[in-house]
Amino acid sequence: MYGFKIIKRDGKTGARKGILKTAHGDIETPIFMPVGTQATVKALTPQQLKECNAQIILSNTYHLFLRPGHRIIEKLGGLHRFMNWKKPILTDSGGYQVFSLAELRKITEEGVEFKSHLDGSVKFISPEIAIEVQDALNSDIVMVLDECPPYPSTYDYINLSLSLTIKWAKRAKQFWTHSVSENGRYLFGIVQGGMIKEFRRKATSELIEIGFDGYAIGGLSVGEPKKLMYEVLDYSTCWLPDDKPRYLMGVGKPEDILFAVERGIDMFDCVLPTRNARNGQLFTRNGPINIKREEFKLDDRPVEEGCDCYTCRNFSRAYLRHLFHAKEILSSTLNTIHNVRFFLKLMEDIRESIENNRFKEFKENFLNQYNKEVEVF
Amino acid sequence: MYGFKIIKRDGKTGARKGILKTAHGDIETPIFMPVGTQATVKALTPQQLKECNAQIILSNTYHLFLRPGHRIIEKLGGLHRFMNWKKPILTDSGGYQVFSLAELRKITEEGVEFKSHLDGSVKFISPEIAIEVQDALNSDIVMVLDECPPYPSTYDYINLSLSLTIKWAKRAKQFWTHSVSENGRYLFGIVQGGMIKEFRRKATSELIEIGFDGYAIGGLSVGEPKKLMYEVLDYSTCWLPDDKPRYLMGVGKPEDILFAVERGIDMFDCVLPTRNARNGQLFTRNGPINIKREEFKLDDRPVEEGCDCYTCRNFSRAYLRHLFHAKEILSSTLNTIHNVRFFLKLMEDIRESIENNRFKEFKENFLNQYNKEVEVF
Repeated sequence: MYGFKIIKRDGKTGARKGILKTAHGDIETPIFMPVGTQATVKALTPQQLKECNAQIILSNTYHLFLRPGHRIIEKLGGLHRFMNWKKPILTDSGGYQVFSLAELRKITEEGVEFKSHLDGSVKFISPEIAIEVQDALNSDIVMVLDECPPYPSTYDYINLSLSLTIKWAKRAKQFWTHSVSENGRYLFGIVQGGMIKEFRRKATSELIEIGFDGYAIGGLSVGEPKKLMYEVLDYSTCWLPDDKPRYLMGVGKPEDILFAVERGIDMFDCVLPTRNARNGQLFTRNGPINIKREEFKLDDRPVEEGCDCYTCRNFSRAYLRHLFHAKEILSSTLNTIHNVRFFLKLMEDIRESIENNRFKEFKENFLNQYNKEVEVF
Repeated sequence: MYGFKIIKRDGKTGARKGILKTAHGDIETPIFMPVGTQATVKALTPQQLKECNAQIILSNTYHLFLRPGHRIIEKLGGLHRFMNWKKPILTDSGGYQVFSLAELRKITEEGVEFKSHLDGSVKFISPEIAIEVQDALNSDIVMVLDECPPYPSTYDYINLSLSLTIKWAKRAKQFWTHSVSENGRYLFGIVQGGMIKEFRRKATSELIEIGFDGYAIGGLSVGEPKKLMYEVLDYSTCWLPDDKPRYLMGVGKPEDILFAVERGIDMFDCVLPTRNARNGQLFTRNGPINIKREEFKLDDRPVEEGCDCYTCRNFSRAYLRHLFHAKEILSSTLNTIHNVRFFLKLMEDIRESIENNRFKEFKENFLNQYNKEVEVF
């Protein structure tokens, strides 16, 4: 009943279409997960998110652990009920934010001690605690605690970091098996190893040995050149088990998503559509546009002709430009609706193209049109 | 066809229920108009506003005159189309904002020269220009340019100010008659005169002599003691023509609205529900609550049991408290939905009580419950 199933493979590429059945409903892959850091996808109501056809969202364990606290959310019936989002939720482990946002990190084999970026209070997280927190949130897809080495890092640092990540993954699996493991909820391992092929290979095989419900590729899109990211992604993906969902963390731009889907990635998350919306960057099939520009002052057209989102059906570029300049809250809301819908529609089109063995053509056509007017942003 | 019609009078008070038919639809009075200063009711989509059952909104001429500019809105099809709000819109004259927000005001009989608070550019507004601007916006209810004396002002200042306001009203009416006057669109005069009875009386009779489609009481709720406001409101309302809509500008709190409806006021606007929502103050039948308080940390109840708004149907006080502390945009949206709905539901209940000759009981019951837990905010 529950589990991951590949429904269709594209005839000419590694792209695949699947279904992941969770306790909160099915997810069609390849899928994009809008980011809802603090128990809200910024600027959207759950209703608006549903109208964008979101199937699953990602929420950040680190943030919810600190505020309001996972035990509070647990007492209020879990994260789905707290934020009134009834569909699946994936939570990250908190590791990435501990290493990027928190201060005073003391890493030991046991776990990480850190200072909250909110009030400076000292907190501790371990592979077991990371799962405990995500369990309290009642998330559908739980991620193991990992350490994500910054780019660039030395060979020795990555080596050390990876062996910690693997040890933590083992403990996480053990804790999960004994304390949580439930039908329709999944534990995903995370492949690290910097940009070093032998480490990535080692990480993959050791994680497979431990055995997870799905596998994530972490540590990419952390500042490395795009060519390098593509190179790592290329070999990393093909080592992953074919019958499990594959999740590329924190990626990315439409072109990155297409590159990764072609190699068999099933899941994505990124703050790009939501964060850039708040900064006035709107995605279109002809590339991103910057809504604050003078040229849109009298532009009565929607952001994108033919887009079925609430924003495009009801408002002009000129109005969105006005809202942005007037610093109105509605600017963030309408821009976010469009960008989220753009990414989700892209995934719908990708799935349809796989269904029809036309992924490669779809990708080429998309990129031809998209890059025509791409703006360096 | 168009025009104002009283449908029902409350048997025991001056309260009346009416309909004002405009080119963009009917308004049932007594009505509350949410404020949409910059062509958006802050934090709400027009869809959400409609779901709150808003029948008419107010927009600020001063702000739109400066940004994006009324000619731009005109080219884009008028304010209704620009902001995608298809129901009626009342615009103020801009006078109040010129006197409260702008700098370097030079008042002459011709009009007012002022510096934009946005970029310091020098602008000029006159009774005629105020109407021209509102006409370009295509607003349904147009207000004449007036001068609103601050509180307190001297007798001489108010005297001088009032004679200017009256002269401007005459010119406005003349300009309206020759240049705009259309079926289903209305020009309202504004009664000023500070807190001085003889001035208010004089203003009222001179405005009636000029003849307007409706009459507003301006210059109240500008810092005077509440007792004084009630006193002025009490005598000012009964001098107004019975068969025209009466609009109390910038008011107000639920208790003020009830006081004014009892004396025959038909229309209200105020930033209270929207502004206070963004500051975490939420209105309930038991008085306002402040959502940021510790006591709501684990409170699983809606803001108000039985409230039919989207916020109360879907979210707990604990969640709203979290969003507020996390400074999430959704906090403003959900709080605003509730407060706007609270005010509009109050008006619905008021209209129903008038229909049933029960306004006085309704008012007493409401105030008994409301003041029980009123919080000094």
